Amino acid sequence: MHYGYLNGTIAPTDQLTLGITDLGLLRGYGLFDYFLTYNGKPFQWDWYWERFQNSASRMHMRLPIGKDETYAVVMDLVQRSGDPDVALRFVLTGGYSSDSISVESPNLLILTESIHPVPPVQYEQGIKVILDDYVREMAEVKSTNYQRVILMAEAIRAAGAQDLLYHRDGEISELSRSNFFLVKGTRLITPDRHILHGITRRTVMELAQGDFTVEERPVLLSDLETADEAFTTSSTKKVLPITQVGELSIGNGQVGSASRFLLERFDDLVQRW
Amino acid sequence: MHYGYLNGTIAPTDQLTLGITDLGLLRGYGLFDYFLTYNGKPFQWDWYWERFQNSASRMHMRLPIGKDETYAVVMDLVQRSGDPDVALRFVLTGGYSSDSISVESPNLLILTESIHPVPPVQYEQGIKVILDDYVREMAEVKSTNYQRVILMAEAIRAAGAQDLLYHRDGEISELSRSNFFLVKGTRLITPDRHILHGITRRTVMELAQGDFTVEERPVLLSDLETADEAFTTSSTKKVLPITQVGELSIGNGQVGSASRFLLERFDDLVQRW
Repeated sequence: MHYGYLNGTIAPTDQLTLGITDLGLLRGYGLFDYFLTYNGKPFQWDWYWERFQNSASRMHMRLPIGKDETYAVVMDLVQRSGDPDVALRFVLTGGYSSDSISVESPNLLILTESIHPVPPVQYEQGIKVILDDYVREMAEVKSTNYQRVILMAEAIRAAGAQDLLYHRDGEISELSRSNFFLVKGTRLITPDRHILHGITRRTVMELAQGDFTVEERPVLLSDLETADEAFTTSSTKKVLPITQVGELSIGNGQVGSASRFLLERFDDLVQRW
Repeated sequence: MHYGYLNGTIAPTDQLTLGITDLGLLRGYGLFDYFLTYNGKPFQWDWYWERFQNSASRMHMRLPIGKDETYAVVMDLVQRSGDPDVALRFVLTGGYSSDSISVESPNLLILTESIHPVPPVQYEQGIKVILDDYVREMAEVKSTNYQRVILMAEAIRAAGAQDLLYHRDGEISELSRSNFFLVKGTRLITPDRHILHGITRRTVMELAQGDFTVEERPVLLSDLETADEAFTTSSTKKVLPITQVGELSIGNGQVGSASRFLLERFDDLVQRW
């Protein structure tokens, strides 16, 4: 059973409610973060906290509690869940507003959730994504603005794909909720702008040191044609191979050795976490 | 006292809550509409309903109740408010989602609110707006994505301004929550794209027939320099003169006769509503 924290109170998640004047609801003014625990310990906690704090600052919102207090809440919720491996969701909204537009006092919500792992077949065969001419507003902030991918859900399904690959003016940025990498020989190439700076992305770039040269730079649509492999990274996807972009097969269309190698390294890291 | 309707139940607004897995909150997936009653009757009800329905359709959401039933709810809420002149807010969200991303069954919220009229001094002196290089995503849909104006609240205040005037690539679209008009002689000029098609905008264009030539077309930043007057329209702002855009005074910097004339016509119309 999952519990959640809302402005100082802890209760079962299905009993948690927000008043309907919350600016997250009325004006889409909110941000969130999402990470996993392994062996009961929050993965890359320092990095996630830093990002959440930066997002809040960019959105001109003050976090109502500090890092240590938040960590204590997280550990309390994880313990109540009874599961050492859960997902944590943080949501910070503009709060209740008397005039439906002015930020007064943010609402902070912290929840545990069950992890929805990627089906094993997707790691074996890779996934298909479709191109979408779109760039997220303030992509570097993990805001709650995910209108686009929900709007495109039918198009994704109709194409037999799993996700969108955003691009604009010939430049690739990211998937709807995860980062993008290309492999060319021993070079790992990943977009450097119009992206959320993913914690799994950062972890994978560290794990790749010594075996790969990592290039953070603009990635063009034309780079897809000369890539050996592609993959996407996120906390739940880990290192998930992309074998098809629209009608284009990446490399030989099979899951490649670099993707497999990095996934193994990632799995090793989290097992020891 | 104001009441609200949520999925079939009516209760005092401050007792209405939504569960925290609502996609409006978690993913910014929601739309809304907002209109006033005059003399106890919803102003331009047919046009608002049509727009709300179009927005829902564009967002792939089904309205849980039809036009007549919705009208009955509106009239019930207006009566409970005890005030013949109130604001109505409709909010339709993606609803509760078991995986935090898939739309299952939308939540519909209908509220009465007190009207916050524009201070009379703003009609006498006109307002100042500041330019903002921004264009709303799916501007023609009244989604809940108002992140930008909340983010810019401090910049607006610091400039001694009231709102933003969005533009991109030299082309003006709209203010953050209202439409934009320029007056040149007897011509009324208003942007035709990247805008929400406002009901007050439509009403004013009708009221202008016979006295003005109305041009719906791309409006350039350079048009500001040769305009006699500018104004903005929305249900609460009605016809509100804009006398300054950044450091530029519009026309002679005073409220002009066309703006005054159209505001009078609008006030006449709503008094007889």
